[in-house]
Amino acid sequence: MSGQDAMQPIGLDDYRAAHERVKPYIRRTPLVEAHPWVPGGAAQVRFKAECQQVTGSFKARGAFNRVLNLPEEVRRQGLATASGGNFGAAVAYVGKTLGLPANVFVMNTSTPITRARIESHGAKLTVHGDFWDQSWDAAGANVAEHGGALLHPYADRDVVIGQGTTALEIIDEWPEVETLVVSIGGGGLLAGIAQAAKLLKPSIRVIGVEAAGCPTLYTCRKEGRIVKLENVKTRVPILAARSTEPLNFELIEKYVDEIVLVDEEVIEDSARSAWQHAGLAIELGAATALAAVSHRCFERRDDEKIAVVLCGSGSDGMPKA
Amino acid sequence: MSGQDAMQPIGLDDYRAAHERVKPYIRRTPLVEAHPWVPGGAAQVRFKAECQQVTGSFKARGAFNRVLNLPEEVRRQGLATASGGNFGAAVAYVGKTLGLPANVFVMNTSTPITRARIESHGAKLTVHGDFWDQSWDAAGANVAEHGGALLHPYADRDVVIGQGTTALEIIDEWPEVETLVVSIGGGGLLAGIAQAAKLLKPSIRVIGVEAAGCPTLYTCRKEGRIVKLENVKTRVPILAARSTEPLNFELIEKYVDEIVLVDEEVIEDSARSAWQHAGLAIELGAATALAAVSHRCFERRDDEKIAVVLCGSGSDGMPKA
Repeated sequence: MSGQDAMQPIGLDDYRAAHERVKPYIRRTPLVEAHPWVPGGAAQVRFKAECQQVTGSFKARGAFNRVLNLPEEVRRQGLATASGGNFGAAVAYVGKTLGLPANVFVMNTSTPITRARIESHGAKLTVHGDFWDQSWDAAGANVAEHGGALLHPYADRDVVIGQGTTALEIIDEWPEVETLVVSIGGGGLLAGIAQAAKLLKPSIRVIGVEAAGCPTLYTCRKEGRIVKLENVKTRVPILAARSTEPLNFELIEKYVDEIVLVDEEVIEDSARSAWQHAGLAIELGAATALAAVSHRCFERRDDEKIAVVLCGSGSDGMPKA
Repeated sequence: MSGQDAMQPIGLDDYRAAHERVKPYIRRTPLVEAHPWVPGGAAQVRFKAECQQVTGSFKARGAFNRVLNLPEEVRRQGLATASGGNFGAAVAYVGKTLGLPANVFVMNTSTPITRARIESHGAKLTVHGDFWDQSWDAAGANVAEHGGALLHPYADRDVVIGQGTTALEIIDEWPEVETLVVSIGGGGLLAGIAQAAKLLKPSIRVIGVEAAGCPTLYTCRKEGRIVKLENVKTRVPILAARSTEPLNFELIEKYVDEIVLVDEEVIEDSARSAWQHAGLAIELGAATALAAVSHRCFERRDDEKIAVVLCGSGSDGMPKA
């Protein structure tokens, strides 16, 4: 959590201020019409193409909002985070852009592509631990010793607010939108989008999507409390947070209408369809949200106005040409 | 050529009328900011994402304009074309959309993905010939026998005008744009974009790009006449038209400022960069235009406002994940 402000209530003005704050540093990603493609018989679908966001995902929004809100003297001591991929790349990029040193801790299992992307932005890369918690503890120890700001990838007020700016852009461009579909990793994107959207347009419906092999929020909601899954097996490791945090859970419980699961078998095919029908190179995490529409994982009308947030780019679902 | 109208001069109003005509059937593709990506040190680059166009490429613009301009009684007899890929898919899609039968002739070398895409739109697929000319002759014979409209992929007035509507959208959205960069297959896209852009904004600069292994228009311009290349060897078969036609050559000579060649070796890398930095899944034909910017194949300022037309989507340059 983001220290003293963690419990301060969040209002629409916070999202609007964050949007103004991050705008100069991010892309206003396009809201691409699926038409004439009709995924799963849904005739009015648009894609919020965060796969075209700087650093390859929505994570840049939250990272910039968090760091730009830090007091100058803290910021100057540098940034640290632990991330398997997209948030690490975003923090590295924020560091480069604002001229701040950045330490990114990644797990032993991180891929060469991820490491290269982080280092390409000039961050110091440290490989530590087999699990995210271990990388995170190492990042924390580094900050305790050398100072600087420790940035949590999703359980952070300013990060959540930053991610929620995505909703402002969708509703601004398409005020008639009825339903938002968002995939869930740690829950930062979904929490921010759901709250911002509901504050701006209370009638909107927000659907959270998980891969069936890692039903974290689905299980939390069913049990009415935060649980930690012991055994997960999914083709979408980028969404495989086995638990969530109180900030995210609270916002999701309050603002998300439904959490649905997508069959693991259909996710790659959805990534390929996005490429074939819309020229979008999305990662499997984004394809999971799309699959919930294509495979009718929630009740809807065929003419419902649905915006699918495509959270990041990737080639993990691409056809091997 | 498009029969009797072939020699009629083309004016800006023709492009504007075509744009109104095709608008209901195509996507207004986004003009995506490359910023903060600075390809080849070019700080103000935007991508016209025709890779997100319906049917996967700009070809839908020309195909719709051509067919919507046909007399009703001709149209009803059906559509025929020969195409290695994108134009065939576009004609198939036009047929489906307007309820017209479509015959698409492809070469023996066409890929399963191409064939499946054409058939997915309900067109009749005929595989004939090792070279495009042979497929084209078969399509012509079919029309001679059964009637219908024979649609040339690029040497056609209405097709060229349709492709040129791309320029209207770019300049409408970014009036300050200084330079357009467009890759060349048969030359239909370049001819239409160059004329429309110059009529709308005479100060604009238009650059045509070819892969070094198939320098068709480069050679035509150098020799001041249409030539047919005998030996071509390129990694970008989709651009490998070994000749052009009088309509295209005339417009390109009149309106295109410069034709440049891109080293074959750098094209795949440009496709990967587009994916990595901008989440765009472009085919190698589109990557060729991007490579001309990234690899500084023409003289320019670093702050020049450059729009690169990314003509189609594909996975031929994608990293194998």
